Amino acid sequence: MGFIVQKYGGSSVKDAERIQVVAGRIAEEAREGHQVVVVVSAMGDSTDRLLELAKQVNPSPPDREMDMLLATGEQVSIALLAMALQAVGIPALSLTGPQAGIRTDRVYGKGKIQGIDTNRIRKALDEGQAVIVAGFQGINAEQDITTLGRGGSDLTAVALAAALKADICEIYTDVDGIYTADPRIVPEARKLDVISYDEALELASLGAKVLQSRSVEFGKRYNVPLRVLSSFKQGKGTVVMAENEVMEAVVVRGAALNTDEAKLTVLDVPDRPGMAAAVFSALADQHINVDMIVQNTSEEGETDISFTVPRTDVRKSLDALQRVAEEVGAQGVSSPKNIAKLSIVGIGMRSHTGIASKLFAVLAEHEINIDMISTSEIKVSVVIEEEGAEEALRVVHRAFELDKSDE
Amino acid sequence: MGFIVQKYGGSSVKDAERIQVVAGRIAEEAREGHQVVVVVSAMGDSTDRLLELAKQVNPSPPDREMDMLLATGEQVSIALLAMALQAVGIPALSLTGPQAGIRTDRVYGKGKIQGIDTNRIRKALDEGQAVIVAGFQGINAEQDITTLGRGGSDLTAVALAAALKADICEIYTDVDGIYTADPRIVPEARKLDVISYDEALELASLGAKVLQSRSVEFGKRYNVPLRVLSSFKQGKGTVVMAENEVMEAVVVRGAALNTDEAKLTVLDVPDRPGMAAAVFSALADQHINVDMIVQNTSEEGETDISFTVPRTDVRKSLDALQRVAEEVGAQGVSSPKNIAKLSIVGIGMRSHTGIASKLFAVLAEHEINIDMISTSEIKVSVVIEEEGAEEALRVVHRAFELDKSDE
Repeated sequence: MGFIVQKYGGSSVKDAERIQVVAGRIAEEAREGHQVVVVVSAMGDSTDRLLELAKQVNPSPPDREMDMLLATGEQVSIALLAMALQAVGIPALSLTGPQAGIRTDRVYGKGKIQGIDTNRIRKALDEGQAVIVAGFQGINAEQDITTLGRGGSDLTAVALAAALKADICEIYTDVDGIYTADPRIVPEARKLDVISYDEALELASLGAKVLQSRSVEFGKRYNVPLRVLSSFKQGKGTVVMAENEVMEAVVVRGAALNTDEAKLTVLDVPDRPGMAAAVFSALADQHINVDMIVQNTSEEGETDISFTVPRTDVRKSLDALQRVAEEVGAQGVSSPKNIAKLSIVGIGMRSHTGIASKLFAVLAEHEINIDMISTSEIKVSVVIEEEGAEEALRVVHRAFELDKSDE
Repeated sequence: MGFIVQKYGGSSVKDAERIQVVAGRIAEEAREGHQVVVVVSAMGDSTDRLLELAKQVNPSPPDREMDMLLATGEQVSIALLAMALQAVGIPALSLTGPQAGIRTDRVYGKGKIQGIDTNRIRKALDEGQAVIVAGFQGINAEQDITTLGRGGSDLTAVALAAALKADICEIYTDVDGIYTADPRIVPEARKLDVISYDEALELASLGAKVLQSRSVEFGKRYNVPLRVLSSFKQGKGTVVMAENEVMEAVVVRGAALNTDEAKLTVLDVPDRPGMAAAVFSALADQHINVDMIVQNTSEEGETDISFTVPRTDVRKSLDALQRVAEEVGAQGVSSPKNIAKLSIVGIGMRSHTGIASKLFAVLAEHEINIDMISTSEIKVSVVIEEEGAEEALRVVHRAFELDKSDE
């Protein structure tokens, strides 16, 4: 008898029929004697529908009310899934994020989980019920509903698996695992059986959107194995887990392309201590995540600071940067430029050399210009033009022989 | 400066445009310096859509999950209305039933309000916010969401007006007031300026669906004046309030038809003490509201017990009655028969005689057969065949000259 946390995304519960399929899958686990906690997202495009309604009544809806609105999507899913389970004879209890004891900080729209009071869930499990929890939501100290931002339902599932000490957290999605690269871009990409937390983390942050970073981080911190698998196809998916020696034998595990970022440059910043701090704390105050940063000091004692931010935050970033540029006496802010970030990832890089230079050589050979570079112990990323970036990914995938099995 | 509780029904907030109209109306009150608490229902047909989804996954969905599901409808409305208010510069805060402190008993789907913790609402009002509360819902001792059943949003509004000691509770709906009879059936029906709680109560319970009984009862108990008015048309609507001498001068205030009930008969019940108690406690256990009751003892020491129940409860009633019929040794239960109940209502009846006999005479004159009769101090009701019942209502309306103004 095991203890499983499962998470089903919006496409897995997009209509009554799909909900019944999911109920059937949960019922199997329950009949085998497993304890099951299930986290669900909002049905299909229901979140989009709510966003559209909000926009109609208020072009810039307040965050608190947005969370109040969006949280209804998951609440519909949990009620229906609990009903569907009871229809097939499985006792089930639905719980909203607040009812499930998921406490967050005060940031609406991007709440961080601060703790989980698992009493109510444990009580229901002890009574033999399958527990269905609304993903993506929690409650703050003011008893207001907060949502957890993108990938929030995955996060709910992993956090619950950690808090409840579940054996595994299964993330059901519309893909059947994690691939060496996005198969829509690289047809010869290969599904991985296993990947380390750190590799998944790098891939997630680099735009391989199967798992969100925050979920993998949570899994890593509490050592919860995650299994990514399809809710439509049979298959064992990909397990994300702590690394071991076998895994280290692979130098490059996968490659990813991120086209969600734009590059901004603050021009002619005076070369004095505290300038970078001023720029980036202005962005941090607006909860904007800065990714790659490059600073080059010229000989005239002035410097350009370039960095990438999510494209959705470009307008907010410009507002903040224009203020800070004036304050510190910089010349101004460049127009934002959409870029692509191409990365290769593998824990084996730690013990191998020459990986970065091989990447640069491959790109040079195909006349792809590199704009920014960033490396970590297990990753090399380059910023390139958005145009041609997909072809670049295919080239790199081939050059590192990611299509060939490592077993 | 006044303190108003307003309630808007589903048709008043059925789309973004209507929500903006409602926001405009609330903004007017707020700008005049009034404190405003607004209760809203789910948008248009959203509740029907949720019911349909539930039916698809489970033909008899459990009540707790049904409440979890349906409560999302009002939550969507409050978030959108708060957004729409902020868009026109009015600070507004949405609160779910649980957040608004509306505590209920444990009966899912038909929860009774047991108390309201008004702290959070008062705090928001003190901060100058318009407070938008989800109607129809509350929270029980287990921290589960409960819904209040039909007319629940009105009840939320009246209960809040009472708890907050508001000056008036305005119920915005798709009709512009309470009429002497349903104008869709009786074209010459006349809008009333004022009606007493007791009259409104009788009319509500008799099928005049503008206001639900529970709301009027609440208003009466706490002496909250209610104003029923249209959210689409200008006009002062109808005020429901404590009776006074002027109101007593009118003998018959209105007439109503209820076609939501069916008649059931338990046949050949042994004529022993406790038989009626057994029958009706079996129905009460199932939370079925029994309306009219007639018992006739035959000379053979057996008796038929007839009564009316809501048509929606017929199946549940039959199940309960068949069990009880066996237990007490009755012959069985008749097939349910859909009937119509026609009633005339007026507090003036207390001091006038001959009203019932005039009603019977009018019906006899038009060859309408009377099946059951029930009277109270301020009401006479007769059960008649469903066929021809609307014509009967028109005949009675004319006979009592309800189309003529009483001023």
